[in-house]
Amino acid sequence: MTDTVKINRGLKGIYFERSGVSHIDGTKGELSYRGYSIHDLATQATFEEVCFLLIHGDLPNTDELATFDAALKAARTLPEPIFEIIRATADGHPMNVLRTAVSALAALEPDSRNTGEDAFIANGIRLTSQVPMIIAAHENIRNGRAPVPADPTLSHAANWLWMLKGEKPSDDAARLADVDFILHAEHGANASTFAARVTIGTEANLHGAIVTALSTLAGPAHGGAAEDVMKMVHEIGTPDKAADYVKAKRKAREAVTGFGHRVYRAEDPRARHMRDGVQKLGEEMGAPEWYEILQAVVEAMKPYARHGLNVNVDFYSGVIYQLHGIPMDLYVPIFAIGRMPGWIVQCIEQQRSNILIRPLTLYNGPEMRSFVPISDR
Amino acid sequence: MTDTVKINRGLKGIYFERSGVSHIDGTKGELSYRGYSIHDLATQATFEEVCFLLIHGDLPNTDELATFDAALKAARTLPEPIFEIIRATADGHPMNVLRTAVSALAALEPDSRNTGEDAFIANGIRLTSQVPMIIAAHENIRNGRAPVPADPTLSHAANWLWMLKGEKPSDDAARLADVDFILHAEHGANASTFAARVTIGTEANLHGAIVTALSTLAGPAHGGAAEDVMKMVHEIGTPDKAADYVKAKRKAREAVTGFGHRVYRAEDPRARHMRDGVQKLGEEMGAPEWYEILQAVVEAMKPYARHGLNVNVDFYSGVIYQLHGIPMDLYVPIFAIGRMPGWIVQCIEQQRSNILIRPLTLYNGPEMRSFVPISDR
Repeated sequence: MTDTVKINRGLKGIYFERSGVSHIDGTKGELSYRGYSIHDLATQATFEEVCFLLIHGDLPNTDELATFDAALKAARTLPEPIFEIIRATADGHPMNVLRTAVSALAALEPDSRNTGEDAFIANGIRLTSQVPMIIAAHENIRNGRAPVPADPTLSHAANWLWMLKGEKPSDDAARLADVDFILHAEHGANASTFAARVTIGTEANLHGAIVTALSTLAGPAHGGAAEDVMKMVHEIGTPDKAADYVKAKRKAREAVTGFGHRVYRAEDPRARHMRDGVQKLGEEMGAPEWYEILQAVVEAMKPYARHGLNVNVDFYSGVIYQLHGIPMDLYVPIFAIGRMPGWIVQCIEQQRSNILIRPLTLYNGPEMRSFVPISDR
Repeated sequence: MTDTVKINRGLKGIYFERSGVSHIDGTKGELSYRGYSIHDLATQATFEEVCFLLIHGDLPNTDELATFDAALKAARTLPEPIFEIIRATADGHPMNVLRTAVSALAALEPDSRNTGEDAFIANGIRLTSQVPMIIAAHENIRNGRAPVPADPTLSHAANWLWMLKGEKPSDDAARLADVDFILHAEHGANASTFAARVTIGTEANLHGAIVTALSTLAGPAHGGAAEDVMKMVHEIGTPDKAADYVKAKRKAREAVTGFGHRVYRAEDPRARHMRDGVQKLGEEMGAPEWYEILQAVVEAMKPYARHGLNVNVDFYSGVIYQLHGIPMDLYVPIFAIGRMPGWIVQCIEQQRSNILIRPLTLYNGPEMRSFVPISDR
């Protein structure tokens, strides 16, 4: 070992694999899934179409979508012990409960141990439907209500809101959830997806990799931004106080949450769709002040934006959830619902040309020393 | 993006961080923890001393060890809902049950959400004691027996065998388990430890990282070697058939399990301690044939050894477990018991100087294309 060894902290700038799933141009602020601009997908596609696109590589035709959608709907079922496990852990954070239930599914569903591309797709479809069911069942159980059974007439997004609240969502609310899921569906080698690929690298099964992804997404520096922004908005209180808040944060050299991203130097292209949603929903619901506070923060941050401090996707999503009356501790689980197809397809990619992912650490500990028996220490 | 971007598949040879915990010299076949040779530790230390060494950086004196040992023993307790969860998933693979229970502990024990070095040490000590309890409780429950309560008079290794079997182990058996745990305690940036560090990189808590590590260890290419070797030994049947078995495998260009390692070019320095244990235990128990089969395989592999195909640590450990009457699906969980301190201390290291671990993938998917509505596809 010499001093010339390069340490790539955070693996920043290191390419570990090729991937044909999504393309991020951080400088231009562009994102595409399988060659389709995120802007087209967010305005013209459904989450089901995007799932199909990500997993199979192309947008589905009507028949293909019908078959895929039927498989997703048929998978809206949970083994009975999952409800026992949710009840046994009901006071925990929803991410812990979700991860525990997904881990338990691996124990309860023997198919989960199958590997190979077909098994990953089948298990992936099942988990895509089960993840929102688990989150909704937990929300109901912890509030003393019975879990709401899935409704096979509803889309993935509408069924999620139905199971969560026991009320049919408006078309607008369902579409906003749909767009939220599309925007979160895939994002290159982000930490949770990368960790899932490390798990697959040991030839583990898909359930194991999704458990890893959930553990990693749960960290505040990854999935926690939406919740942090909402806390900030509450702390600021009214739009006129935003400038002082930002000034104080900058003076204390603290980060303003919801700004900046490891890969984007321009604005996160997903942000604008959430911004439009926040504005529209806030006006409709007679609560425009949330949007105004957020925009006042953006305005106050402009002097710093030349350093690449633009809003990221989660700057706006928390307010949408808040307007829907969704508790803050469900924001990260909602991110997980959206990210499922990205995790699944990158696990498939990893497995297709698999290799153990094992980097190195450079030793900087004590030199070799002789063992001293405890009586002489 | 140009064609000159280097893809570091498997992150082979890439240093992502400095670490003062263990040093591996793959060419010489050397391993040390905090400057102490693995040979000294395997022959002169206890697992409790090694845990202290790894976590605190130095071997403990008598008082320090007594305090540390008391903390480990005080942590031999599981919340009641964990037993419900084990019962609800009892038919699953022990790794799935273990991971589910550790994930549930995060939901059940509010301290688990604390981060910072002291919290990681406290939660790490608790999990170190709880992991073998969960595995033993599951083994008893799935065999229709009541879980065996921990015995505070016994060492970590002896208590594990006591809880597993409900019988006090002989001193030799307890020491062999102790050595097994010491040999597995830490091993640089292996896949499970690295994945745990990726999870901590998002500022997740220790429980989340251990769940990730368990998911990653469960893959056959990481923790599955001991089980695979045991299956091979059964397939070979008698020592005289080993040469033909190896020849057939090499002809078919298939790997012979238990040979080769990403970082060792010489013999894995941990292997010799397990080899000695297998030989001694086999003779004592009147079952020397397992050792003889293994040595016949090593002999038959010698012509290929110049390519770096030396035995790794798990070549011998499966036979030890088999001689102890431990079912094959517990081999990976046993690896997890041993690896706990390595996971914990590297999570502490990662958190001490934390950074999001997020590499890149090079896009090789379709060029940008226009969205086509489903009616036109």
